[in-house]
Amino acid sequence: MDLEEIIQQIQSIEPSWVEKARQHTEKLAIPPRALGRLHDIAERLCGIFGTLEPDVSSKAFLVMAGDHGVVADRVSAFPQEVTGEMVKNFLRGGAAINALARSVGAEVLVVDMGIIPDVDLCGHEMDQQFRICKVDRGTANIARGPAMSRQQAKQAILHGFQLASELFASGTRLLGTGDMGIGNTTPSAAIGVVLTGESAAKMVGRGTGVSDEALARKREIVELALAVNRPNPADALGVLEKVGGFEIGGIAGCILAGAYYRRPVVIDGFISTAGALVAQALCPRVVDYLFAGHCSEEAGHRMMLAHLGLEPIIDLRLRLGEGTGAALAMGIIEGAVRVFREVLTFEAAGVSKNVT
Amino acid sequence: MDLEEIIQQIQSIEPSWVEKARQHTEKLAIPPRALGRLHDIAERLCGIFGTLEPDVSSKAFLVMAGDHGVVADRVSAFPQEVTGEMVKNFLRGGAAINALARSVGAEVLVVDMGIIPDVDLCGHEMDQQFRICKVDRGTANIARGPAMSRQQAKQAILHGFQLASELFASGTRLLGTGDMGIGNTTPSAAIGVVLTGESAAKMVGRGTGVSDEALARKREIVELALAVNRPNPADALGVLEKVGGFEIGGIAGCILAGAYYRRPVVIDGFISTAGALVAQALCPRVVDYLFAGHCSEEAGHRMMLAHLGLEPIIDLRLRLGEGTGAALAMGIIEGAVRVFREVLTFEAAGVSKNVT
Repeated sequence: MDLEEIIQQIQSIEPSWVEKARQHTEKLAIPPRALGRLHDIAERLCGIFGTLEPDVSSKAFLVMAGDHGVVADRVSAFPQEVTGEMVKNFLRGGAAINALARSVGAEVLVVDMGIIPDVDLCGHEMDQQFRICKVDRGTANIARGPAMSRQQAKQAILHGFQLASELFASGTRLLGTGDMGIGNTTPSAAIGVVLTGESAAKMVGRGTGVSDEALARKREIVELALAVNRPNPADALGVLEKVGGFEIGGIAGCILAGAYYRRPVVIDGFISTAGALVAQALCPRVVDYLFAGHCSEEAGHRMMLAHLGLEPIIDLRLRLGEGTGAALAMGIIEGAVRVFREVLTFEAAGVSKNVT
Repeated sequence: MDLEEIIQQIQSIEPSWVEKARQHTEKLAIPPRALGRLHDIAERLCGIFGTLEPDVSSKAFLVMAGDHGVVADRVSAFPQEVTGEMVKNFLRGGAAINALARSVGAEVLVVDMGIIPDVDLCGHEMDQQFRICKVDRGTANIARGPAMSRQQAKQAILHGFQLASELFASGTRLLGTGDMGIGNTTPSAAIGVVLTGESAAKMVGRGTGVSDEALARKREIVELALAVNRPNPADALGVLEKVGGFEIGGIAGCILAGAYYRRPVVIDGFISTAGALVAQALCPRVVDYLFAGHCSEEAGHRMMLAHLGLEPIIDLRLRLGEGTGAALAMGIIEGAVRVFREVLTFEAAGVSKNVT
């Protein structure tokens, strides 16, 4: 499918279902709106699915991996090899996203969107599914020129769209996005600066934990990448091309697929939200289908979420990525749905209503 | 067992286990402390259980119900009958705590700590377990005199201790507290004022949603209750006797049992935290064993938590009680344990460590 065609087909959620859902909430044997955001979450899910019986029982994660040329400028505390090493760890089920996905009963599908090595699958126990959609062997260094070609940017998005579409077709009702890519807070921050209009000083943070010196360098690198590439915020595909990453494009594609197939997507932290900024710039209506899993410790994340108009579900000082914050939030979303569907009405429970 | 004896037996958690747990976290294939509060939660559980293999797989809730004489002064938006009606709803599994407890695989044990009616169990499907520990048929009106006798205050605490002890003996590894009692934000606010030293103006909120007029009256009632009873903050049992409630005493007893048997207890919102204030005033060491499930919308809750030195796990604008916020937090606690126990070390996963 063509990207333009996908974008044109995406529609906002149906406000009449949200309204019907609010009326149902009023009948539940609970004081008015006393479960706060749980009600809002459940009602938006009714709008997304177009039903008063939202079902998020089948959950899955797409964990998108990519490498980044900008690592040559020492923007990360970890060596670039870790991207491929962690992909293997995901496949063995030994990473934090595996543990947290198990905790909420979600499947994990790991995707090579463009890491440098080929993951050698021989001799590994494969605990998780794996897809190879390698757009290239890492991006080029955004501090010197564009990260990728415009064609590759589109390809990354379409791979993400296709992978998420397959999961929805096979029954996934709640999709989480995750990422792996040493150095990927740098392109994410660059995307954040372009698409929110905030400064690099505010948007760039420590990622997985760089020193003060490396943080200052990282800010300079982001400013340099923007000066060299001059991305145009009105051209979202061009932003991904010039300062993005393959996994970030893949995440943007997942988000478009959620909106296209009317399925909720839970985004994770800084990198997933950079993907959401790209998707929103391509098609503002996607935000209706998005839940912000958590608020990251990474400096600019709160500004990105504010730009999207999303309120994070949890805030536990995470700064890992992989989808970990989204996985924790899935438990809350599941709870919101259970309250909506399982709590008896005042009438059915024989409980008196409030008198004021 | 005698209350004094219980208090004397309670010991702080073992800092050496927390330190060993921190060393284990450092080895996991995760950037340093990148899962923020999940690490803190898991490490404290190691301190509580005295192990590097904390296990919270068996979860249960004690939902304590009581009635309140102060309802005669129109402090609630709901009629007093709702307490008993909701107890029946809990037993049928039709309330929010039932839905959320199912969501995290927790059992629910409902306790009549002192509601006015006798719950007629004939003809009801019993989805949940029920215990009758009726201290009295509702408290007296705290705006006129003490809520209960000193003997009843002690009895309420010891019932809670006994019930929680039985759950721990039968395998519960993570206990949540919940409450039901029309009017119970009023005594909870009074306890909050006495034990935190904050003003009634700050501590009293809308509960399940009273009008501006009723809120002003509720503040006056709390001030009147304190003037009439003059509870002494140095005498925690006396605070419960004078301005407390039977379910609040029961919750304090659960918390003492958690500390006594070295089991973690997740407190819910405003009422459970009033119980925690009583327990802490009896024995400051109990706080080591407590997790604050959430931060309630009720005005004074944040001040109570600050007084206890507890940071809430979630903040979703809940103001229901029943244990609902604690149930949602249990999913996060479960996730924290899974990360601690299931994530591979850098060495086992073959992942390079950070270079800075």
